[in-house]
Amino acid sequence: MPTATPYQQLEQEFRRLHAFRGVLALLRWDAAVTMPRASADVRGDQLAALEIESHTLLVSPRISRLLDRADANARSLAGWQAANLREMRRLHDHAIATPQSLIARMAKAFVRSEARWREAREANEFNVLAPQLEETVKLVRSKAELLGQRFSLDPWDALADEFTPGLLSRDIEAIFTPLGQRLPGLVTEAIEIQAAAPALPIEGRFSASRQRGLATDVMKALGFPFDRGRFDESDHPFTEGVPGDIRVSTRFVQKDPFRGLLGALHETGQALYDLGLPAEWVDQPVGQDRGMALEESQSLLLEMMAGRSRAFVTFLRPLLEKHYGAAGPEWSEENLYRHLNRVARGTSRTDADELTYQTHIWMRYELERRLLSGELAVRELRDAWIALSADRLGLVPANDVEGCLQDIHWAIGSFGHFPSYGVGAVIAGQLWETIREQQPGIDAEIASGQFGGLLGWLRERVHAMGASLGVPQLVQHATGRTLSAAPFLRYLERKYLAEPGTPG
Amino acid sequence: MPTATPYQQLEQEFRRLHAFRGVLALLRWDAAVTMPRASADVRGDQLAALEIESHTLLVSPRISRLLDRADANARSLAGWQAANLREMRRLHDHAIATPQSLIARMAKAFVRSEARWREAREANEFNVLAPQLEETVKLVRSKAELLGQRFSLDPWDALADEFTPGLLSRDIEAIFTPLGQRLPGLVTEAIEIQAAAPALPIEGRFSASRQRGLATDVMKALGFPFDRGRFDESDHPFTEGVPGDIRVSTRFVQKDPFRGLLGALHETGQALYDLGLPAEWVDQPVGQDRGMALEESQSLLLEMMAGRSRAFVTFLRPLLEKHYGAAGPEWSEENLYRHLNRVARGTSRTDADELTYQTHIWMRYELERRLLSGELAVRELRDAWIALSADRLGLVPANDVEGCLQDIHWAIGSFGHFPSYGVGAVIAGQLWETIREQQPGIDAEIASGQFGGLLGWLRERVHAMGASLGVPQLVQHATGRTLSAAPFLRYLERKYLAEPGTPG
Repeated sequence: MPTATPYQQLEQEFRRLHAFRGVLALLRWDAAVTMPRASADVRGDQLAALEIESHTLLVSPRISRLLDRADANARSLAGWQAANLREMRRLHDHAIATPQSLIARMAKAFVRSEARWREAREANEFNVLAPQLEETVKLVRSKAELLGQRFSLDPWDALADEFTPGLLSRDIEAIFTPLGQRLPGLVTEAIEIQAAAPALPIEGRFSASRQRGLATDVMKALGFPFDRGRFDESDHPFTEGVPGDIRVSTRFVQKDPFRGLLGALHETGQALYDLGLPAEWVDQPVGQDRGMALEESQSLLLEMMAGRSRAFVTFLRPLLEKHYGAAGPEWSEENLYRHLNRVARGTSRTDADELTYQTHIWMRYELERRLLSGELAVRELRDAWIALSADRLGLVPANDVEGCLQDIHWAIGSFGHFPSYGVGAVIAGQLWETIREQQPGIDAEIASGQFGGLLGWLRERVHAMGASLGVPQLVQHATGRTLSAAPFLRYLERKYLAEPGTPG
Repeated sequence: MPTATPYQQLEQEFRRLHAFRGVLALLRWDAAVTMPRASADVRGDQLAALEIESHTLLVSPRISRLLDRADANARSLAGWQAANLREMRRLHDHAIATPQSLIARMAKAFVRSEARWREAREANEFNVLAPQLEETVKLVRSKAELLGQRFSLDPWDALADEFTPGLLSRDIEAIFTPLGQRLPGLVTEAIEIQAAAPALPIEGRFSASRQRGLATDVMKALGFPFDRGRFDESDHPFTEGVPGDIRVSTRFVQKDPFRGLLGALHETGQALYDLGLPAEWVDQPVGQDRGMALEESQSLLLEMMAGRSRAFVTFLRPLLEKHYGAAGPEWSEENLYRHLNRVARGTSRTDADELTYQTHIWMRYELERRLLSGELAVRELRDAWIALSADRLGLVPANDVEGCLQDIHWAIGSFGHFPSYGVGAVIAGQLWETIREQQPGIDAEIASGQFGGLLGWLRERVHAMGASLGVPQLVQHATGRTLSAAPFLRYLERKYLAEPGTPG
């Protein structure tokens, strides 16, 4: 048997790391869905042990040597292998910049602050979380500074690179400047237009089991593989797992017939992305998704663009009759469309329409940069949140659960993540525009519950590329155009400035 | 800071191994309770990766060196530390006898044959499982032969040592010879006595949710910590996890009001053992349970002895009224006692009374020795099972689910395990006799739902010893007497030969 090349040995090592990633995913899924409440300390030890093990493997002198030897022979590698080697190098260089002791402390602290976040939400009191969040922010700041020094980046940029590989904050801000100029006016115009044609209210109590039944039917139509995946309820919608065992969860709110469904659509978008990643590279770095901004684009394309289109409402209408016994004028297609696309300034990010959503993102962007730099103390976060809400949204949250406790991200140590939601929307807008140009029958397909055309396009142009390209290159490859906010803005204007009743 | 001693370094390494054990426990729990059906291949890769990692750590040259150096300085260690070092050595020497490649192949094969076992049960067809079981048996045989060579043991004994440390098959057979001589006659006598005072049938449909409610109340009275543990439903009752996150599951059968409860009692006995292990050694080898026979003793003491006593029936009666609306003569304490302690020859091991149970165990003991030695081919297992059932029980199973598909053990590669159930019953008999001598008020306590006296005794005498003693030494320590079947036999005779209606 010939000796394995350095590159082949690297593939073998990263196969082990992939298995550990899957195990870590299950540990997190269980912590959010099935773990007993008081077991967070035990889980923290387990996560820490496995994170350290993964980290030790990734930064080992053996991997460093193999990378150097493989780099020296990179000319002999085929395209995907070369891209895989680049991703291996990226992961290795990032990991080696964070010491093991810090990783272990972060893992334990994040589990504790996540548990405290849940308690704080139950008590509706930010101060229950604050002391633990302070510890978490301190640790994240240490990591950001180390990464920043290593890669000569601003600390926040160093964290954000994990979520939007290939995009720096100056690129992100350049993309968003036109949005920031146009959106405030567009929000006002949309609200005025919609006020002239208001949606009838949809009232009632919709049990979790009915909402689950509806979402399950929709997920089946989208091709979610229930024999190799799960659909559960948790405090915050999320997707976790690996292709072959992918787990989606959503949150049901009894008086809102669509909240659980839209959360499920959002997460199913990400799950279908994971499932469409190149099968032959599933256990290698190049076979992974291209970061959170891309994941978010797949979620928003499904939840916001396809999932709230007139065509989708046509598909949905009989399912609402089946699961909710929907009857009456408030359940007409026109009213459902208005209901699902209503624009309103509100305090909740996850409930926000796609116009005001961007305001929430930039609010969090500002706050987390100030928290990270130390300019804002954790104990002042609630006041800062309230002040910024008042300024940007013209609203003050009624309490902590509706304000600074609404997101799980900071509690689990996730900083640099929020802007990827905004970038994700911009990417989704550009993909959606291209799909609609290239597949003129797409509306008729969606209306009849056929999602093969939409998903086939995404699978071929986006999912199948894995992590072989950077974010801007991937968008260029998929759409043939440079990444820009213009298509997203065109989509928003066409949709929200249209006369009521016109096809959207 | 002074350098850590070799022993202290070992403690640190075994702390990591403990975290991995907890993770492996969760992976298995999830596979049985929550994992999507078709994800067994993904889970197999994950289990294999983590088993290999644990194994690599345990057999590493570093651990070998540290063990040698710590052994050389063993005189400086306190009693528990010395016992911990002995257990570390035992685990290391066992692990090093099995090559990594075999461990990885076993982990994958066992997950596949467990999934196939579930499918075979659904199809009620042993041949669905047979090909995969053949692979599993082949791999287990390789392991047994390697271990046997290394420790100069019979291959089966080498496997069984994991379940009953310190007891060889000749000891086990010596303990059971008096049982084998007495039990057949005792079964016949008990059946005759009970025929003269039959139990009224208890009929009806008892939903899983009512049975769950009943079992939950009983587990609460026993002190099961629901904030640091779970109680679920699965195909086969089991306990999984670590102290701090311990998970019990049971199986509900709609027409049997007690099946789910008794399964839960059985598993709760094991869970309470785990929870009573010495807290300061929780992440070290000496802080673990003393093998399956001891675990089983804790399960059977609760399920069979305390849990079917007249005192327990008195405690249970109002809960049956609460959850089942129990009323009428069939729910009287006398009838419930008769119902719960009925002796009948049957084809199911888990449903068997404590008298005929031993026959099931010895039947499996014979079959698994023949499977392991190759004398019996897997494809002949069904026929051999039927023949042995007819000979020993005078019964032929109606189908595969009630016959050779009833146990999960062989499908998950567990050979050498069954006799530990029998030894567990014998140990439980000896513990129960001692408790009743030393705590004369125990019946009154149990009748009023007070389990503190019983559990306090077990915690102090058994649980708190961890793995610091071998099985025979631990029984000697707890009861002051040599391990023997005599107390178990006295218990059985007193109970089953008593006139109906006398206190049992």
